[in-house]
Amino acid sequence: MDVKEVNKIYLAEVTAALLRAAEFPDVPELLRNAMRYSLEAGGKRLRPCLVLGVFDMLGGESEKEKREQALSLACGLEMIHTYSLIHDDLPCVDNDDMRRGKPSNHKVFGEGQAVFAGDALLTCAFERMLENGLRYNNKDYYRAMLEIAKRAGASGMVAGQSLDLIAEAEKTMDEAMLFRIHRRKTADMLTAAILAGAYIAGASGVQLSALERYADKLGLLFQITDDILDAEGDALLMGKTLGKDEKSNKLTFVSLYGLDEAKETAEQIAVEADALLASNFPENADYLRGMIDYIKDRKN
Amino acid sequence: MDVKEVNKIYLAEVTAALLRAAEFPDVPELLRNAMRYSLEAGGKRLRPCLVLGVFDMLGGESEKEKREQALSLACGLEMIHTYSLIHDDLPCVDNDDMRRGKPSNHKVFGEGQAVFAGDALLTCAFERMLENGLRYNNKDYYRAMLEIAKRAGASGMVAGQSLDLIAEAEKTMDEAMLFRIHRRKTADMLTAAILAGAYIAGASGVQLSALERYADKLGLLFQITDDILDAEGDALLMGKTLGKDEKSNKLTFVSLYGLDEAKETAEQIAVEADALLASNFPENADYLRGMIDYIKDRKN
Repeated sequence: MDVKEVNKIYLAEVTAALLRAAEFPDVPELLRNAMRYSLEAGGKRLRPCLVLGVFDMLGGESEKEKREQALSLACGLEMIHTYSLIHDDLPCVDNDDMRRGKPSNHKVFGEGQAVFAGDALLTCAFERMLENGLRYNNKDYYRAMLEIAKRAGASGMVAGQSLDLIAEAEKTMDEAMLFRIHRRKTADMLTAAILAGAYIAGASGVQLSALERYADKLGLLFQITDDILDAEGDALLMGKTLGKDEKSNKLTFVSLYGLDEAKETAEQIAVEADALLASNFPENADYLRGMIDYIKDRKN
Repeated sequence: MDVKEVNKIYLAEVTAALLRAAEFPDVPELLRNAMRYSLEAGGKRLRPCLVLGVFDMLGGESEKEKREQALSLACGLEMIHTYSLIHDDLPCVDNDDMRRGKPSNHKVFGEGQAVFAGDALLTCAFERMLENGLRYNNKDYYRAMLEIAKRAGASGMVAGQSLDLIAEAEKTMDEAMLFRIHRRKTADMLTAAILAGAYIAGASGVQLSALERYADKLGLLFQITDDILDAEGDALLMGKTLGKDEKSNKLTFVSLYGLDEAKETAEQIAVEADALLASNFPENADYLRGMIDYIKDRKN
């Protein structure tokens, strides 16, 4: 089956599970509305799809209870991703008024409530994962939770956000810094998703190591194509195309390399990621190989 | 031994463990500094003291590994408490420039970095607790973690913070709302601390239920005395004493009841909390009984 079709199935499955996990009967109305506003805004739900895709790929499909565990981790990851977007959009960080075609959380609920909606989603991710963990009583599940906490935290995603903010303020971004930031800000959470699915499927150490290297490439590919899409969107808005000499103000892979070279870099990383899968998972990596093109050729 | 003396011992023990847990070798310098700035600012570390006090009281003192588990949860709770103060002080929430006699986190590191320092501390709390959980492999430890997540999250502490912000903005605080906010904002985290220590000590259902009721009273007592201390501090600054008719602008137990009645309410709650302990733990509740006076009669 085509990756887009598989992802549609995963998306429906994850969205249903996520809304069940986010009913919040005991949560005060405004906080609940703020949390659900951003959770329901949706998007591609790439991280949860990766959890399920890796789990299914590694032969876990037949074990119903383990599939549930993968789904629970997928929901936790999506809550964490959603909180990070709310805090990233705040006026004191990126100051973005719009997110996924809707006003960003703080434009609707106010800045203070947006801070709390993010805090609540982050805590809720661990609350729900722990609730399920106590039912499953599976050490691999807790190992996956720890992987998620590490990659989401002070040495992972939040580190990337903090460094990004410093670089924006100081205008001192170079190539090494750009890679360092996006390894943490973007690649770490995709890696957490891929490894979480692998842990639950009982992957071997060799498999985990190969998947980690693949995930790192997928994360960089995601960020570079994101920057390319932004640059082409901006160019369209300005009624002209951006060339290497017309760098925008924002510090991105496009502003660093220019549009053409950024596209070449993306192609190169895609080839490397595919080669990694071909040599480590020669028989069953259709989904993960498909994800490379899905990410590289997406339109938003 | 006097409660103050016991708490001094606990404080030293917790501070040492907390600084070991917060070395953060992989965390970028600015983020690490921002996290440690607030963690090291210290304070009474009431929540960690309660974890250890309840654990020791319920006879767990002799089991070395379980004592370590209690200490690990104590550190997690303190990281969560610290993050909540950083976010509460933000300009878009309480806008406090000072905390524990030092400039608040965002005054030193900037608002965006303060948001991230809080996010990082919250995530780190779960990261460290999960790391230790995998070593201990004890279901009661994970039950305690879940209690902490619930009480810290969208139906606990963050709910209280969100409601407090609404009440401040709308100036519509009444007595029921005031109790509702502080049950969540203050009492829930003290309850989490007390129950965490009790879980690890293997407390019975009856004991847990009695401790939960005690913790709720201790939380309200803490908040009322906090409001009294604030009011008396303000009065001292203005060179006069506050009476029932001179309510300050902030919505507190003192602004609601007046100073004298607030003090009477505090005394009443203290008597109830003590009676609860006397009937449920007639033999070994010295520490928890002492904590009532420690909280009620403190000077800051």
